Amino acid sequence: MSVPNLPVDGRRLWDDLMALAAITEPGRPWTRRAFSPLFLEGRAYLRRRFEEAGLACRIDAAGNLIGRREGIDPARGAILVGSHSDTVPDGGRFDGPAGVIAGLEIARVLDERGIRLAHALEVVDYLAEEPSPYGLSCIGSRGMAGALGADHLAMTNEASEALAMGLERVGGSAPRLGEARRKDVAAAFELHIEQGPVLEAERTDVGLVTAIAGILRLEIGFLGAADHAGTTPFTHRRDASLAAAGTILAVRREAERCSALGRGHFVATTGLVTIEPNAANVVPRSARIVVDVRYEDASLASSFAAALDRATAEAAEGARVERTFSTLSDSSPSQCDPVLRALLQDAAGRLGLSSRAMASGAGHDTAFLTRIAPACMVFVPCREGRSHTPEEWAEPEAIAAGAAVLLEAIVAFDRSAATPEGGF
Amino acid sequence: MSVPNLPVDGRRLWDDLMALAAITEPGRPWTRRAFSPLFLEGRAYLRRRFEEAGLACRIDAAGNLIGRREGIDPARGAILVGSHSDTVPDGGRFDGPAGVIAGLEIARVLDERGIRLAHALEVVDYLAEEPSPYGLSCIGSRGMAGALGADHLAMTNEASEALAMGLERVGGSAPRLGEARRKDVAAAFELHIEQGPVLEAERTDVGLVTAIAGILRLEIGFLGAADHAGTTPFTHRRDASLAAAGTILAVRREAERCSALGRGHFVATTGLVTIEPNAANVVPRSARIVVDVRYEDASLASSFAAALDRATAEAAEGARVERTFSTLSDSSPSQCDPVLRALLQDAAGRLGLSSRAMASGAGHDTAFLTRIAPACMVFVPCREGRSHTPEEWAEPEAIAAGAAVLLEAIVAFDRSAATPEGGF
Repeated sequence: MSVPNLPVDGRRLWDDLMALAAITEPGRPWTRRAFSPLFLEGRAYLRRRFEEAGLACRIDAAGNLIGRREGIDPARGAILVGSHSDTVPDGGRFDGPAGVIAGLEIARVLDERGIRLAHALEVVDYLAEEPSPYGLSCIGSRGMAGALGADHLAMTNEASEALAMGLERVGGSAPRLGEARRKDVAAAFELHIEQGPVLEAERTDVGLVTAIAGILRLEIGFLGAADHAGTTPFTHRRDASLAAAGTILAVRREAERCSALGRGHFVATTGLVTIEPNAANVVPRSARIVVDVRYEDASLASSFAAALDRATAEAAEGARVERTFSTLSDSSPSQCDPVLRALLQDAAGRLGLSSRAMASGAGHDTAFLTRIAPACMVFVPCREGRSHTPEEWAEPEAIAAGAAVLLEAIVAFDRSAATPEGGF
Repeated sequence: MSVPNLPVDGRRLWDDLMALAAITEPGRPWTRRAFSPLFLEGRAYLRRRFEEAGLACRIDAAGNLIGRREGIDPARGAILVGSHSDTVPDGGRFDGPAGVIAGLEIARVLDERGIRLAHALEVVDYLAEEPSPYGLSCIGSRGMAGALGADHLAMTNEASEALAMGLERVGGSAPRLGEARRKDVAAAFELHIEQGPVLEAERTDVGLVTAIAGILRLEIGFLGAADHAGTTPFTHRRDASLAAAGTILAVRREAERCSALGRGHFVATTGLVTIEPNAANVVPRSARIVVDVRYEDASLASSFAAALDRATAEAAEGARVERTFSTLSDSSPSQCDPVLRALLQDAAGRLGLSSRAMASGAGHDTAFLTRIAPACMVFVPCREGRSHTPEEWAEPEAIAAGAAVLLEAIVAFDRSAATPEGGF
């Protein structure tokens, strides 16, 4: 980091970030899962800080918390800047919140500098970017993009509550979901930690995202029989854990094969495994596995899924158990806007910050925003590329640098953008 | 079943068994885990029925519920008959309770027939035969045998409560544990469902147990790193689920090899698998596995554990994770008493019931009783050999037949046993 004088207040930004992080499950930092009471507590903090910054707050029908600063020209629509405040279990303090607080800081600096934009500026906390208790991620940004359908709303949490009901609890409204769909977005920006090791290793200040990998989630279930572990001969067993174990190894084997083909970013992970009844002296009756696949090349993802379909069929046959194989969700790869990326690159250059173009292996709300507006992301380095863990860390200066790049690019966009003819 | 007139009231026995079974977690039949509020509710039912049968009830320091019927000759000590009332999660209605209620029925019939025994008769509900929330099984019978040590008492449940505290909650007492150790047991009997397919397939009425397999429980832990599932390259991952999957397959592979050697009963099972943080988009940081091994030949169990030690070391190295490998518990194989078995065989013959000698692949409280007294078990057939599942089933007539055999053998033992010289 070579620039001491950034046009944002890095200390103020950091203090807000740490204050939000402190709202966590006490014994399990840093956990603030979407739809939980803690999540609502975090949002109450954000709303208060938004209002203190002069932003007009609302929660849209898709459950997004939005703080709005009006622009001079109502015809120009809104510039969105934000990210998400929810975390994974045992997650970090930066993945999500850094982008929301950066947006807040940008709004504050614009006010302090007396800069009025032609566009409205909206600071957004998108609802539930991480996998929610309903099994769905990016709920709020899906809603903005008109991509939250009846099937999604019917998904349930462990208490059998439908997402439609969950939305109501956080201030959204399933019946009015159409109102959340946006047609007035001129540009959407998001700051986020990289969640990978490249920027830190290269000592590059910011990453400018070219594309966001697609995310395919596969659910595989095995159903055998619960038998006594001491008396049931192997020939009589239908042990679901054996099929699950074979699947975990097949996921890694097939994913490494796909990754080595050089057809863009490709990884796959078995992160979720549930065995029932899960007692030491009972042969497992059932197993449920969720596989997470990240890809740039959709045909490669299809090839992986087909290979896994075959491998799990063999694993099920070997263990004499029944099998289900289904797609939980599939978000296609998304292209970020090259014009916005050029504005971000120019801004970094003016601030004396180094930058590089890079693809995102992680999913982001911006993936859904690209469907309705030009959108782009700024990545900031994080320690050892780690995220989704309590040890996740980004330096205060790194986040401030990213926020400064965003601020400069937003002002530049506002000044350069042609007056739209006939709206958006 | 060829004998309509048995010397026990099969209907009364069955009604008590079903009444006890109805005390279950409502959404998860048939679950009544040791130390739970439901377990205490089940015991309150048993205690009431014991008292209605004229038995003097107490809970000993090891948490065993005991209903006592005094004998004519105090010098002869006690004949124990019983089993356990706790179940595995999603367990059955017979594994355990059938033997407790059979003991109760035997006490009732002795009274109704006006039979006074020289020995005292104690009907016992041994505490926590199934793996308890503290990770230990056969807690009550261990206590009676003086095999419940300080290490056991320090074992904790998920709420970090020590077993010593749990004992207090069910009416036992860790400080007074020495009082539970028995030196006055003349003979111990237990009725149990076979939990295997042999008796049903052969249409044999009762099994007379020659030996109870040893039970070795191994705990294997893997510790890697929680990383983002979308951005972390495979070369950087330390995925604990991969080591867990390799272990599950190695357990089965090595166990089949050992089983095929023809050195007595041998099976091994991975019944318990826990992955953390268990979220779809996080590389698993840790995995915990408990392996259950049943054996007649102790050297074969040692050979299996050594092979698994090597296999899990390789799995950990392959996944670049740390590993722990430890023995949770190890109960040696136990020999049942041949004199008691001969009495049971004679009793079956007199009742016109078919019987056969057989080893038990499942563990039982009787394994600990063999350390302090002559002990033997009666097995009754169960449907498809299944247990530890809600579908577990034994016919009312089969249980009544087993209880009748026990009753006749107990009376025969009481009459045949020589007066001890100098007590026990």
